[in-house]
Amino acid sequence: MEPLLEKFAKLGCDNAPGQEGRQKTVELELRGEKLEGIPVDFSHGDVDAFPPIPGALTNFVGGVEKVGARQAYTEYRGGRRTREDLAGKLSAFTGAAIDPEKNIILAPGTQGALFLAVGANMVPGDKVAIVEPDYFANRKLVEFLGGELVPVQMDYWGTADQGRAGLDLEGLEQTFRGGVKLFLFSNPNNPTGVIYSPEEVGRIAALAKEYGVTLIVDELYSRQVFDGRSYTHLCAQAERPDNLVTIIGPSKTESLSGYRLGVAFGTDSIIDRMEKLQAIVSLRAPGYCQAVFASWFAEPEGWLEQRIAEHQAIRDALLAKLRSCPGVTARTTEAGSYLFPKLPPLAVPVEDFIRILRLYANATVTPGTEFGPQFTQHFRINFSQNREAAEAAVDRIVTMVERYRG
Amino acid sequence: MEPLLEKFAKLGCDNAPGQEGRQKTVELELRGEKLEGIPVDFSHGDVDAFPPIPGALTNFVGGVEKVGARQAYTEYRGGRRTREDLAGKLSAFTGAAIDPEKNIILAPGTQGALFLAVGANMVPGDKVAIVEPDYFANRKLVEFLGGELVPVQMDYWGTADQGRAGLDLEGLEQTFRGGVKLFLFSNPNNPTGVIYSPEEVGRIAALAKEYGVTLIVDELYSRQVFDGRSYTHLCAQAERPDNLVTIIGPSKTESLSGYRLGVAFGTDSIIDRMEKLQAIVSLRAPGYCQAVFASWFAEPEGWLEQRIAEHQAIRDALLAKLRSCPGVTARTTEAGSYLFPKLPPLAVPVEDFIRILRLYANATVTPGTEFGPQFTQHFRINFSQNREAAEAAVDRIVTMVERYRG
Repeated sequence: MEPLLEKFAKLGCDNAPGQEGRQKTVELELRGEKLEGIPVDFSHGDVDAFPPIPGALTNFVGGVEKVGARQAYTEYRGGRRTREDLAGKLSAFTGAAIDPEKNIILAPGTQGALFLAVGANMVPGDKVAIVEPDYFANRKLVEFLGGELVPVQMDYWGTADQGRAGLDLEGLEQTFRGGVKLFLFSNPNNPTGVIYSPEEVGRIAALAKEYGVTLIVDELYSRQVFDGRSYTHLCAQAERPDNLVTIIGPSKTESLSGYRLGVAFGTDSIIDRMEKLQAIVSLRAPGYCQAVFASWFAEPEGWLEQRIAEHQAIRDALLAKLRSCPGVTARTTEAGSYLFPKLPPLAVPVEDFIRILRLYANATVTPGTEFGPQFTQHFRINFSQNREAAEAAVDRIVTMVERYRG
Repeated sequence: MEPLLEKFAKLGCDNAPGQEGRQKTVELELRGEKLEGIPVDFSHGDVDAFPPIPGALTNFVGGVEKVGARQAYTEYRGGRRTREDLAGKLSAFTGAAIDPEKNIILAPGTQGALFLAVGANMVPGDKVAIVEPDYFANRKLVEFLGGELVPVQMDYWGTADQGRAGLDLEGLEQTFRGGVKLFLFSNPNNPTGVIYSPEEVGRIAALAKEYGVTLIVDELYSRQVFDGRSYTHLCAQAERPDNLVTIIGPSKTESLSGYRLGVAFGTDSIIDRMEKLQAIVSLRAPGYCQAVFASWFAEPEGWLEQRIAEHQAIRDALLAKLRSCPGVTARTTEAGSYLFPKLPPLAVPVEDFIRILRLYANATVTPGTEFGPQFTQHFRINFSQNREAAEAAVDRIVTMVERYRG
């Protein structure tokens, strides 16, 4: 195969969230009747069920009508006032020192920030460590940029009651010793929803410092923490590596995904390179949309607490339903809106089962293999949905598990 | 130097439009008094002077409030209805056949579309031909992606009265024979504003077909054509290469840059790869902003004609002022909003002169070297500005040329 085609063969997005409608039709064995019900797309959150922060649209319109050209054409790293506002808010949230002139860049979505961060910290041939399971784009980014993927395992299931994520820290050190240049990971973890313990975060930071490894920490879901748990920001650790970028954005808990807004903050030389890359990738985060950042970390009193409580209640309801099905296991989500259940053995491949769910049970989920090749019995759901519709859809999923039990 | 730092050393954006405020302070020799006047930023158009298409914001608000979640989370290639709408409009405009399911993708700005197009059509080590002068990001994209730049010259000045752009077609064929895989160019050309003749377009298409070269044609300014000239769309040529992408968007003539919207259309396998790349670069063109595409190619009657006429009048006024200064030469802009004047010999390097213009004459322009290393006596201005302010600013530029004449 030509190098170009070979490269893109690794970058499939047919199973990626929201892309399911583009899948080729395949023959599927339907057992029993089709299950009717309000369709639920668990591949991403429903911003109709959990609408954007109040006032977001007003801020957008103000950006267009009152600020005008200055809002449309910001510096590539984002408008100065917005950077100043965000540096203050994110310093207060994380405990890190952030200079708005040097340490922060706005990007088109958290995905945009992640692309810039990875692209600005590796060249073809570099070894890059990633966690399994972790966000599916991490591995694809490294593959597109010509890096060598070095997986590190996370035993999130075996450590479910130990208050830690379960990262194989010895394995991580081995990869660092073996020449890894860059380590990227999400905390809270996507897809499992587990939080790294203070000890895990501290050890990752210390190892990166010791071996001179650059760290990219995706903290997209770090505001939505359940059960009153604590969360440890790596960027605020006393002992941390010289090269560190933290990524966060208002697309998830705050439902602002339609505005494509993300932020990265960290080491100034990295932010400089990210801006150079942004200059050729998309110029800047959408200018008018940048005005919407004013709504973030400035939500009405009690708004965030209520949102967290509602998500926690949905989590509990769906977990109870899933666990009522013999053979289905799932660690309790500690933060964020994801569940990553493991299914019992089925009579059909999991990819087929997931298509059956979509076509015959009105439930769209993301296959586990997107998060690591070994997760052949898993799927991910985003439970930021209308609660009633989500509960009915999980009932349908459970019914289908029973029908296809192997 | 480390490979990573070496790579990014080639990607400077300090002189890129809009980034001037980030430049380090240097010692500059000021001759005479500072020239006061309304500051004009010629590095990009002024969307306060030429506001967005009427109704654009209303379409945006409708996308947020009426369509909601479906507008926020489109397929990565863009919302189906928007693709259908645009495929029809762009087919009518260009004469190309565009299947909305296969041949079109929406991106975060024309820059985003260009990044995806280049990234989806080359691997490190590939030879890529570019024109000198041409849009500065073209060369940076190839450098970031590890390609080998192969420049082709355009004698836009020597062919000013011959009705063609002046591309060296024999030189182009030589590069194709020498193994070039990809050729990208802008038509109308950025920065000179010249249009390729039907013969030039036809020859480029035929050569690409003969040698199996992939073409990326940036037609960003193809709606803003002056003096009733005709424009030839390569995508509508009977004889054209198998692999072809055309890029266009509403950021310039239509002043929608603040929404970050661009489009690419062409060969289905290329669009598929571009979508895979978009999945890891920024997911999609901003969802709510996609609703604004409804305003494009649907402007009020006479709106586009008036906009073109106003720009043509500004062009003529500024050209007359520039040409009144002995030693300044500039080919007349045939389409788009750029002028690319050449200066007489100066007593200071052109980079310094350009900083002098910004700091002591309230006029920001882009140095010619951004468009090719040999354009050391040129600068580019975007004349989509308030006419009165722009005329006064060009008067100040001319005064400064006189003061620094070498």
